[in-house]
Amino acid sequence: MSVFRDQETVDLSIQEVFDLSRRVLIAAGLSVPHAEAAARVITAGERDECASHGLYRLPGCVMTIRSGKMSLDAEPVIEDVSPALVRADARRAYSLLAFERAAPLLVEKAKTVGVAALVINNCYHFSALWPEIEQLTERGVAALAMTLSHSWVAPAGGKKGLLGTNPIAFGWPRPGPHPYVFDFATSAVARGDVSLHDIAGKPIPEGWGVDAEGQSTTSARAALDGAMLTFGGHKGSALSTMIELMAGPLIGDLTSRESMAFDDGDKAAPMHGELILAFDPAIMGGGDPAANAARAEALFAAFADQDARLPSERRYAARARSLARGVHAPKVLYDQILALGL
Amino acid sequence: MSVFRDQETVDLSIQEVFDLSRRVLIAAGLSVPHAEAAARVITAGERDECASHGLYRLPGCVMTIRSGKMSLDAEPVIEDVSPALVRADARRAYSLLAFERAAPLLVEKAKTVGVAALVINNCYHFSALWPEIEQLTERGVAALAMTLSHSWVAPAGGKKGLLGTNPIAFGWPRPGPHPYVFDFATSAVARGDVSLHDIAGKPIPEGWGVDAEGQSTTSARAALDGAMLTFGGHKGSALSTMIELMAGPLIGDLTSRESMAFDDGDKAAPMHGELILAFDPAIMGGGDPAANAARAEALFAAFADQDARLPSERRYAARARSLARGVHAPKVLYDQILALGL
Repeated sequence: MSVFRDQETVDLSIQEVFDLSRRVLIAAGLSVPHAEAAARVITAGERDECASHGLYRLPGCVMTIRSGKMSLDAEPVIEDVSPALVRADARRAYSLLAFERAAPLLVEKAKTVGVAALVINNCYHFSALWPEIEQLTERGVAALAMTLSHSWVAPAGGKKGLLGTNPIAFGWPRPGPHPYVFDFATSAVARGDVSLHDIAGKPIPEGWGVDAEGQSTTSARAALDGAMLTFGGHKGSALSTMIELMAGPLIGDLTSRESMAFDDGDKAAPMHGELILAFDPAIMGGGDPAANAARAEALFAAFADQDARLPSERRYAARARSLARGVHAPKVLYDQILALGL
Repeated sequence: MSVFRDQETVDLSIQEVFDLSRRVLIAAGLSVPHAEAAARVITAGERDECASHGLYRLPGCVMTIRSGKMSLDAEPVIEDVSPALVRADARRAYSLLAFERAAPLLVEKAKTVGVAALVINNCYHFSALWPEIEQLTERGVAALAMTLSHSWVAPAGGKKGLLGTNPIAFGWPRPGPHPYVFDFATSAVARGDVSLHDIAGKPIPEGWGVDAEGQSTTSARAALDGAMLTFGGHKGSALSTMIELMAGPLIGDLTSRESMAFDDGDKAAPMHGELILAFDPAIMGGGDPAANAARAEALFAAFADQDARLPSERRYAARARSLARGVHAPKVLYDQILALGL
């Protein structure tokens, strides 16, 4: 996040990021399996320089843990519903352990029938979706994930929070170390980005949000108190609504508004569901998998030919840097984490 | 389309639109089942005042038929691949008959295992996706459809056509006559909209396209000769790329660029594949379907509470008008259809 660019930093190795995250989360009360699953995605976020999904998340995790509603140690219950459907009940704990435990069965189903769904219910969610997507593309399937948040986002033509920031992520397995992956909030930006601007005291661009009266604003604080807007006008709003329906009522879980009501001012992470679809290119492709993979590679090559960047290239470059030389966490954030007293 | 607003019109009943479409398509050489499937969606487009998907499509259909590459009478071959996958080989004929023939099996599978996919291969595609989505929501499933077109659209950061206009459509079954449905091109607008501006000699807004040198343009002609842009910046571009992968290499079919190469200047409809996913709310929801449906209805009610319009409301209002009083087709278009001599 550029808002931290000129601030003092603390140098940490990847292992130190993981150890710090794990230690803080266990000290706050998470069971070891939950703490390690969460620490893995926080470390991945910091490593890939996705600042709003890295160490920045730790204080929020501790706030969620202290809200007292989240289970700190529930073992997810995995249900083999049908040849195409796995259900994981996170039992009001973090989503990540449920995902890790259910992912192998999801992939097995996709590789047997072509397309399969993983429904995660009753989960607290704070992480980016791309770490999950990468766990699936590593196993050779394409994957599409979506989840809700709290009703911070106004629909197109409206002016009050109703939809979540509703991220959607997609991955396509590629030869070589890095899959094609995108992961974006259907809000104009992630709520974490608005919060970072608020913390840094910087104005937000037009189009990110409206104030409590529904008027356009450049104050991060006013947008946090009012409503955020979707990306892409009525199309982005429609997509966000689809995610609201598919990762909410379709899978028998809360909408973003219901999740916010459940939170009841605790400012904990949203508690709701998540939908992940996996597709096996060999079965879906109906024939020559090598030819189909080559067809996708030709598409990616044509991006490079016109100097158009693929979505995760910046993240992969950051990953290479971080793996070689460690990360540089903002000192103000690092001190904030230490001040948690954990 | 507002570009026709002040032009002379011809009044037609819904039945006359269907009969005209059917007659022209059969006279051009389509088999009766193909002509009727195509006439049904053209009539639905004209009825719902989606001008660019109504009678406006007829001259293009005739051009595709006369290109000589499309099969005019192939019966689609339906393959029951797995408990979650149906494949329909359209055998280089229009997609619509393949969809109609395979849709019942898709719905049956979704209602058995929760999620199912219909892959249509080797199909010529000219229609909006929402008529297909409505056929699925009528049977009680949620549905997501995507398809490609020709490589008319530059990716974010690029300046040459590579992606298709890549429409995505979603539907959610509701009590009452109308489902929740959206259907949009991931290009800034549908290519038909740029063409209509070109025909009407009107400029296009900034952001719709670039000229052959990759520079922003307000000339519809220059954008048709250059490249269109996606909606929503890099997020829209990522979504379009996902559609390119999922309705192309994933399902063993052509990319938009390969489809354009196959066309080889004929200006026929694109020939490629289509992916349709169907979801059964009862199975996916894992419990109380009535409570989940009510949760979705509460979401829609909250749109109305803040005067935010749902995506298809304008289309449903047009439908009611057209069913009561017929349609008003532009005379210039009507004459163009009669001049086809069919």
